[in-house]
Amino acid sequence: MTTIQGKNFIGYSLSALATKTFRSYVPAQDNYLEETFHPATPDEVEQTMALAEKAFDTYASLPASQRADFLVAITEEIMALGDALLERAHLETGLPMPRLQGERGRTVNQLLQFADLIREGSWVEARIDTALPDRAPAPKPDLRKMLIPIGPIVVFGSSNFPFAYSVAGVDTGPALAAGNPVIVKAHPAHPGVSDLTAQAIVKAAQRTGMPEGVFSMLYDDGHEVGTALVQHPATKAVGFTGSMKGGMALYKMAMERDEPIPVFAEMGSVNPVVILPKALESRTESLAKTLAGSVTLGAGQFCTNPGLVFTVQSPALAQFEASFQQEIAGVASATMLTAGICQNYRSLRDEAVAHEGVKILHRSEAEANHSNQAEATLARVDAKTFIDNPTLQEEVFGPFSLLVVCEDTEELYTALALLKGQLTTSLMADAEEAAQYPQLLRLLTRRAGRFIMNGVPTGVEVCAAMHHGGPFPSTTDSRFTSVGRDAILRFVRPQSFQDWDNSLLPAELQNENPRGIWRLVNNDWTQAHV
Amino acid sequence: MTTIQGKNFIGYSLSALATKTFRSYVPAQDNYLEETFHPATPDEVEQTMALAEKAFDTYASLPASQRADFLVAITEEIMALGDALLERAHLETGLPMPRLQGERGRTVNQLLQFADLIREGSWVEARIDTALPDRAPAPKPDLRKMLIPIGPIVVFGSSNFPFAYSVAGVDTGPALAAGNPVIVKAHPAHPGVSDLTAQAIVKAAQRTGMPEGVFSMLYDDGHEVGTALVQHPATKAVGFTGSMKGGMALYKMAMERDEPIPVFAEMGSVNPVVILPKALESRTESLAKTLAGSVTLGAGQFCTNPGLVFTVQSPALAQFEASFQQEIAGVASATMLTAGICQNYRSLRDEAVAHEGVKILHRSEAEANHSNQAEATLARVDAKTFIDNPTLQEEVFGPFSLLVVCEDTEELYTALALLKGQLTTSLMADAEEAAQYPQLLRLLTRRAGRFIMNGVPTGVEVCAAMHHGGPFPSTTDSRFTSVGRDAILRFVRPQSFQDWDNSLLPAELQNENPRGIWRLVNNDWTQAHV
Repeated sequence: MTTIQGKNFIGYSLSALATKTFRSYVPAQDNYLEETFHPATPDEVEQTMALAEKAFDTYASLPASQRADFLVAITEEIMALGDALLERAHLETGLPMPRLQGERGRTVNQLLQFADLIREGSWVEARIDTALPDRAPAPKPDLRKMLIPIGPIVVFGSSNFPFAYSVAGVDTGPALAAGNPVIVKAHPAHPGVSDLTAQAIVKAAQRTGMPEGVFSMLYDDGHEVGTALVQHPATKAVGFTGSMKGGMALYKMAMERDEPIPVFAEMGSVNPVVILPKALESRTESLAKTLAGSVTLGAGQFCTNPGLVFTVQSPALAQFEASFQQEIAGVASATMLTAGICQNYRSLRDEAVAHEGVKILHRSEAEANHSNQAEATLARVDAKTFIDNPTLQEEVFGPFSLLVVCEDTEELYTALALLKGQLTTSLMADAEEAAQYPQLLRLLTRRAGRFIMNGVPTGVEVCAAMHHGGPFPSTTDSRFTSVGRDAILRFVRPQSFQDWDNSLLPAELQNENPRGIWRLVNNDWTQAHV
Repeated sequence: MTTIQGKNFIGYSLSALATKTFRSYVPAQDNYLEETFHPATPDEVEQTMALAEKAFDTYASLPASQRADFLVAITEEIMALGDALLERAHLETGLPMPRLQGERGRTVNQLLQFADLIREGSWVEARIDTALPDRAPAPKPDLRKMLIPIGPIVVFGSSNFPFAYSVAGVDTGPALAAGNPVIVKAHPAHPGVSDLTAQAIVKAAQRTGMPEGVFSMLYDDGHEVGTALVQHPATKAVGFTGSMKGGMALYKMAMERDEPIPVFAEMGSVNPVVILPKALESRTESLAKTLAGSVTLGAGQFCTNPGLVFTVQSPALAQFEASFQQEIAGVASATMLTAGICQNYRSLRDEAVAHEGVKILHRSEAEANHSNQAEATLARVDAKTFIDNPTLQEEVFGPFSLLVVCEDTEELYTALALLKGQLTTSLMADAEEAAQYPQLLRLLTRRAGRFIMNGVPTGVEVCAAMHHGGPFPSTTDSRFTSVGRDAILRFVRPQSFQDWDNSLLPAELQNENPRGIWRLVNNDWTQAHV
């Protein structure tokens, strides 16, 4: 069985210069595990970045097939850790084993999708415009363009996905796939899982002959290491999933550098769900059940948790409210990720329900003998109060949802128009009913990155058509997704080659199209050679 | 003949609330034209943004063919202004008539390319992943994604391209093509040209039935109006071409908003050219002639002007220096765009040549009886001095170039490694010689958005494979180009539609593929229906 090291992974070495250490907290038991973890020192940050910088040229120049082999090897090494990895995650996060097993599967699947993507190769968006030497008044040069990697990427592991958005998750996979070295700042809420995963990545890198520095991982239970990494001149982009406060701090830090760099921070969302009257009437029970399941899934610890449900006064509403609260009540309480997250949940929820006009429909009890359990809570408010109190649209991270009842469609539009940018919006209505509300469709479309019909926002499919991102403040950059193949676009930039000799061009741009990729040649899409 | 109005174009109305006015300066004559222009007041800014916000929903929902008709109509109305437009531009900018005629052609061509692009439609990058209702453990939903417009775009006209980077230029065209309203802040150095162009756009918008507010243009000879536009909550992105100081001021302003927005600022570049020894020997005269032409083209007032030329000590160097200075001396002096630009050129050039170790090889004289003429200047410095004085790599906007002579290849690499981000780098070498310098190719590739072989950086082809952009500080966002079809990607974001009814989807994502566009369907590129 693989032993947790507790030291910083600097290239292929372990390093623990700090005398200060921290330990893993077990939220379900309110105690600590034995291993100690060493926060990185400023010297260790410097060493790490120097190695990453050095690795970049070599790594970026490798054939895509070798980078793909590396990604596949990571998945093999992760699976080789076996149940020990899941059990450690269960201790450190309080998440149930089946969920963790599923999340590990998703993580491996994500990495394999990126391996496939770069093996196939068309993702580089090659464009070729051939020369017209005889054009008047000036000859047209030969121009060819493709996406290239940008350099070392700093990744902040998230608390709520110890695998899929952490050390080998949605940022690391595409950053490595594109040809960039990655430096992970491990999340202090699950350092043991991070340690085991880092070992898997390092093994995979060594086994597939990657240059040292292609991957490093540093510990810190404070903010010093993260700050130093974001401010380091060698860092070219940052991936982050977490709180608004954390995301905005990194974003501002990155903008204030001598050379500003992009920060892809996914920060939070209340994922409004709108139920139209006919849908409410015809599907009262099933909607209540589906929504209650989505609100309480994973103790509500998802960025896609439906925190606001809008509906209009109608005869079916009373029955829906009764069923919704009954369904919420039927879900067992669950452990939250950390003591801080649990306290924060309770205090934000209590602030929300303390507003005059907000009524608690149901509040679950935590089980005895379990620490850090979230009490699922459903509340109701009239739209007028919601409109007058902008803080009611702020995220309460946990199993909480607020039912906003509007007098009529006009009030619904007024309330929705006030919403800030979201990861998702959802509409419960059949096509015929929805078609009668064109303004509503526009309102919901413009406010989110993903618009769902007759479904809940939890569950983020890993595929090409997924956009997991949205207008500010749900993310810092609505143009990019963190999930699906297009996540790779965060860590590249285009480069044009003008009149280059064919022999010196990257394979993707050579006349012969040796990689057989799709290219836009003289404005036509083709896999043919030039 | 169309009369210059001098009032702000707020939707389909003219407005001149300010009592303060300014006039057009004629740089070649050092005097002012008669018409007066009214800076916009804060009220006028508010009216403008309210109209743009209102127009957005309608305009974004129009079929692409109608937006394309609008773009084509703009080109027709611009051409209908006839020579009066060119003559006014000649007065206001000092640029020669043939250049202005060419630039007008490029501007029209750019707009027509975007009309073609949106008529064809594949630019929306449609991705479709069809549902797998029977997938275990959870069914796969149907997901479809495409690029959508984002809202009102603020465009700052540039001083050095009165047509191609101004009112109807590289920002306005793609922003309108994508479905966004545009608000132009006219450059005060050519308000008359801006006025005539705005009239053409307004006529085209009315003729093709566009919603009022799809285009507005405001005047200001100070910074108040630009600041108010960038800070306005309805503004969703900013396009700017100009100085580092101006670009960074707008960038910081946009980052400090409650909702940060992207600023695409193209700010400057010295476009290093490297000449390898064999090329210098075999093409001594032609290189000197080509480079001298590029340095002095348009009085050096191009962001792609080659401000640094690197070479290594070799027997052919003395002859090259002699020829280079002779060729520069053979070019007639030319009027600069404004008195400020001319003064700035002289002072930055004088600062550069004042460094100990910098030697002037040639300095032209301004012609008698011509104001604001730039004296083309060629200087030389040894690489050691260049390496020790980072200010020597700062842009001198105008006909100036600095020849940096390196002792050997190692010193060349050291000097190049210090370079900041550039729009372009160029290499003068045949393929055989270039292949012997892999590290040099990497150094030049990583530092610029466009890498040119055996050509000069001036001349920016408008085509799909062009990347006119580059790492900071040449632009604020190296991921986007301002020239070519991909310029449209600056003004859109992706949106996913999950399990939407086919009848409610945008045409681009419907099963039948009514627009016949290329789509990535279940990870395969196809024009077929689903």
